[in-house]
Amino acid sequence: MELSINLTTQPKEIPADESKLGFGNVFTDHMFVMNYDEGKGWHDARIVPYAPIALDPAAMVLHYGQEVFEGLKAYRTADGSIQLFRPQENFKRLNKSNERLCIPAIDEEFALHALKELIKIEEKWVPHSKDTSLYIRPFIIATDAHLGVRPASSYLFIIILSPSGSYYAGGLAPVKIYIEENYVRAVKGGMGFAKTGGNYAASLKSQDEAKHQDYSQVLWLDGVHRKYIEEVGAMNVFFKIAGEVVTPALEGSILPGITRKSVIEMLQSWGEKVTEKRISVDDLVKAFEDGTFEEAFGSGTAAVISPIGMLKVGGKEYTINNGQIGAMSQKLYDELTDLQWGRKPDSFGWIEKID
Amino acid sequence: MELSINLTTQPKEIPADESKLGFGNVFTDHMFVMNYDEGKGWHDARIVPYAPIALDPAAMVLHYGQEVFEGLKAYRTADGSIQLFRPQENFKRLNKSNERLCIPAIDEEFALHALKELIKIEEKWVPHSKDTSLYIRPFIIATDAHLGVRPASSYLFIIILSPSGSYYAGGLAPVKIYIEENYVRAVKGGMGFAKTGGNYAASLKSQDEAKHQDYSQVLWLDGVHRKYIEEVGAMNVFFKIAGEVVTPALEGSILPGITRKSVIEMLQSWGEKVTEKRISVDDLVKAFEDGTFEEAFGSGTAAVISPIGMLKVGGKEYTINNGQIGAMSQKLYDELTDLQWGRKPDSFGWIEKID
Repeated sequence: MELSINLTTQPKEIPADESKLGFGNVFTDHMFVMNYDEGKGWHDARIVPYAPIALDPAAMVLHYGQEVFEGLKAYRTADGSIQLFRPQENFKRLNKSNERLCIPAIDEEFALHALKELIKIEEKWVPHSKDTSLYIRPFIIATDAHLGVRPASSYLFIIILSPSGSYYAGGLAPVKIYIEENYVRAVKGGMGFAKTGGNYAASLKSQDEAKHQDYSQVLWLDGVHRKYIEEVGAMNVFFKIAGEVVTPALEGSILPGITRKSVIEMLQSWGEKVTEKRISVDDLVKAFEDGTFEEAFGSGTAAVISPIGMLKVGGKEYTINNGQIGAMSQKLYDELTDLQWGRKPDSFGWIEKID
Repeated sequence: MELSINLTTQPKEIPADESKLGFGNVFTDHMFVMNYDEGKGWHDARIVPYAPIALDPAAMVLHYGQEVFEGLKAYRTADGSIQLFRPQENFKRLNKSNERLCIPAIDEEFALHALKELIKIEEKWVPHSKDTSLYIRPFIIATDAHLGVRPASSYLFIIILSPSGSYYAGGLAPVKIYIEENYVRAVKGGMGFAKTGGNYAASLKSQDEAKHQDYSQVLWLDGVHRKYIEEVGAMNVFFKIAGEVVTPALEGSILPGITRKSVIEMLQSWGEKVTEKRISVDDLVKAFEDGTFEEAFGSGTAAVISPIGMLKVGGKEYTINNGQIGAMSQKLYDELTDLQWGRKPDSFGWIEKID
């Protein structure tokens, strides 16, 4: 497919103070856009100036949530070059989300090609400070101006870029979480494994209540038995209990995280045993009570590794590893970020250079 | 609150052939729009020409599905006047959806006032043919250009109008449905009771597969036990078994339909017993086998009453009432539509006239 390029004549000012970037607030000069129309397929791939998109008020995405997205980052290395971390996995997952949401598949290879071209154009927007990155947001929305409930026949696939600050401005710090007993994020048979708006919409109220109680996140339970661990906030979750690493198995309601997959593969490369299985609240409480609970952490693109320092179960608060970062959590964070920012050679084949 | 009005200078042509309207395809000349911004509350209520809305590509609704909507109709009576059916209920439910989705509440009374003003302006767009109506779509979307997952701080509340054709172009006809065994629409603790995009997004795949198998809808089961009946397609569902009307109780995962509520109240006014309870697939099969299954129908704004003529459970097809419309289904349809289109006096106090 052809990729047309129309550069802006009014470039924005690139933020000089990278410590004030925050996350997802600032957007670059250009975006990638591609249309889908029934009968024509995906067409008109183009890089154009970043600008508002005009949607009919009846556009289906605004009513029926037919939308999917991805999230990944471009990293600036010490020699000034730019690289991506397993981007193929993101476009593969985007197509899995597409399938669940009845959205036509995209050409994964072309999408990656287009993303690389876009980043080359926006090269100057990739920040230089430690732990900063260019956050990449590919997303697809249904655009038919029609109010009947059915899969749309027209879509927009867009990629926008946002220079973002360090996730841990104050250094890697353990968070407080509690087990969510009232709300459910997703259920087997639903769309929990897809990266789609509805799953995040469903989580807002719970996350908001957690914030008001001064907790960082909630630990989601499964929607059927309401006792098996699923995710933490919008991250996958790992526990180290009696020397063994466990994480909830992917049974349809959990997002198959790319950081999750990388954590498992990295641990295995170190000779650690990682078990994907059903983990109940009772399993966790038992490990707390018998003193075998060693570490807990979330994994995701934004935080990479987010150590959990305290878990509240019912009314009871359990401190993990004395509220300190566990050795394994720290090592995973260091090794993964060393790879991502190119501080160590990539023995996994996970890095995709942009030349 | 003030309501400013800016009329179009380029009115569209009103479709002359009302038999070709279909549903949700044609939109009128104007729309109602109101903004919300943190610190300012809801403001700038206005009626403006119908036009595309410009959204930042990072607008939260396009990523995290923070969106709610309603659906109701304006009806043209024989004397040419226009009326609404229980519109207060729609704005009340919109606020319940808002609460679940962390969207600030709207002023229900003002919203109804604004809707009436909008309809008065669009008076000529309310079609005249039998069973046609002006479909009304109020909706709210999160507009912050921000990629962090949290409730937005800015929103748009919009009402658009769509002249729509008869739902039953070929007359009231029973539909074929089957019990959905693979997909789940919503689960307790989720947002099934809210009218929000994610619930509809979750249903697309299943509905699409049903269409390909030449079924009209699916009958949704609960996400926990996968055996209790929830809804049919995007409608509530009723069964008449052994002389008694039953419908699934509202336990958090089912939309509290306004037609559902009206059906219950109307049946009760006739002295019929209606029971809201858990109804299992086994209950239905048992009623088929012992010959006590009399009628089944969906209820919703679009169809009003949609009789079910055949239900497939597992591999087995059960015909209901010889595939004919049941007497109670027909009577409910007639009485409800007589009220809505003003063919009979309103003894329930459900009609809201627009003068």
